[in-house]
Amino acid sequence: MSPDQSAQDELKGKLTLVGLGPGDVKHITPAALDALTDADVIIGYGAYLQQIAELVDQTRVQEFPMGKEQERALESLRLALEGMKVAVVTGGDAGIYDMAAPVFELIAEMEPDDRSLVDVAVVPGITAANMAASIVGSPLAQDHAVISLSDRFVPWEQIEKRLDAVAGADMVVALYEPSSRHRPGQLGKAQEVLLRHRTSETPVAVAREATRADESVDVTILGQMTELAHDKRTVIIVGNSKTVSVTDWMITPRAY
Amino acid sequence: MSPDQSAQDELKGKLTLVGLGPGDVKHITPAALDALTDADVIIGYGAYLQQIAELVDQTRVQEFPMGKEQERALESLRLALEGMKVAVVTGGDAGIYDMAAPVFELIAEMEPDDRSLVDVAVVPGITAANMAASIVGSPLAQDHAVISLSDRFVPWEQIEKRLDAVAGADMVVALYEPSSRHRPGQLGKAQEVLLRHRTSETPVAVAREATRADESVDVTILGQMTELAHDKRTVIIVGNSKTVSVTDWMITPRAY
Repeated sequence: MSPDQSAQDELKGKLTLVGLGPGDVKHITPAALDALTDADVIIGYGAYLQQIAELVDQTRVQEFPMGKEQERALESLRLALEGMKVAVVTGGDAGIYDMAAPVFELIAEMEPDDRSLVDVAVVPGITAANMAASIVGSPLAQDHAVISLSDRFVPWEQIEKRLDAVAGADMVVALYEPSSRHRPGQLGKAQEVLLRHRTSETPVAVAREATRADESVDVTILGQMTELAHDKRTVIIVGNSKTVSVTDWMITPRAY
Repeated sequence: MSPDQSAQDELKGKLTLVGLGPGDVKHITPAALDALTDADVIIGYGAYLQQIAELVDQTRVQEFPMGKEQERALESLRLALEGMKVAVVTGGDAGIYDMAAPVFELIAEMEPDDRSLVDVAVVPGITAANMAASIVGSPLAQDHAVISLSDRFVPWEQIEKRLDAVAGADMVVALYEPSSRHRPGQLGKAQEVLLRHRTSETPVAVAREATRADESVDVTILGQMTELAHDKRTVIIVGNSKTVSVTDWMITPRAY
């Protein structure tokens, strides 16, 4: 590399998407922490910033309201293009239903030459499904699917088609965003689809706020899964036909 | 809790399944490190033990050969039932195609009363699919499936049925264990199934030994994915019909 090139790279902005994992700081990787320490500015939704309040210098923090992913992505990229080192923090893994998507959608729209003006990186985090699974045993030990019940970006017909396909192929399913204030009935509709292929006794784990102070994680059955409290940040894992519930555990055997 | 109960719990053995993530120590969570520090004995396959050679006291380490999961699970449980604190280390996440399954299968077979003789816990780790995804951008930003191509525990007909189902529902698919010395042709067979539903131009990421010294991560297309080197520990991510490849990135948009 020529000295000129090296000097240019020094001045180049950086945009790093950082997954903080489920909530407890014990699940934040050193790689994620390094990215936060290295950043000139840390951008995120308030709840995620609170999670790291004691780990980072608050003067570098820029809070954004929830739901404004597009604005957060635009502002982050703008700052990085100015030469700043920007860390965008998310819960779980930034690449799973989170900020990696709007940021890379912007990058896809950029002029090819402009893309080299900023270094973009993703630091993975423990996803909500893996955290929930670890609390209840080994529900994801076999082939599984991850499906969001939010119809904000995907039409409900497509979500239903996916649920039907994976349940028909007897895969374990992790459901993200099972409901919100705007969509209270989605989980019941998903339950109906799953019941086409599974018995109502199929073990189900419902994990809310895992590793946080108000954590509630329960193993129930498919026929009753809508009866437990669930919200946008709940993850629900529905077993396959071989999954068993043993004491408080949910166990999917390897052998099919 | 009575003093007697508390003393009993002190003497109780503990079995903790610890996911070390993809390889680089920068992706090992503090929770995982705590579990290793806390253990009387650390059990694992040699490559995973090497990964943590500088982090733990080697006198506590017990190496097992690869493939002997059942023996490793039995020995771990036996030591924990003797009152030891046992940590079983795995790559990635212990719950995804790894040691959580054989351990919990043994627990399912135990007499109900015996289960309370040992505390069992799982500490999640960064899975191979999430690591691979983070290196190539945002391929898993939407609904996706995780399917192993190994027919050691699942008949190939079932694997093919699952591939067909998730491809037919236009989900992104992460393929684990795409080949081994014993099964060299599985990836080609999977490719045929996926090509029923996707064009050969569909972006595909092939990630081998991500974060390790001999890492190779490439974005290619479905029609050519078998041409890149792949082994048992490779993860392959196949996009959905909306996934695009932009410079070195693989981007799945949120909107469907």
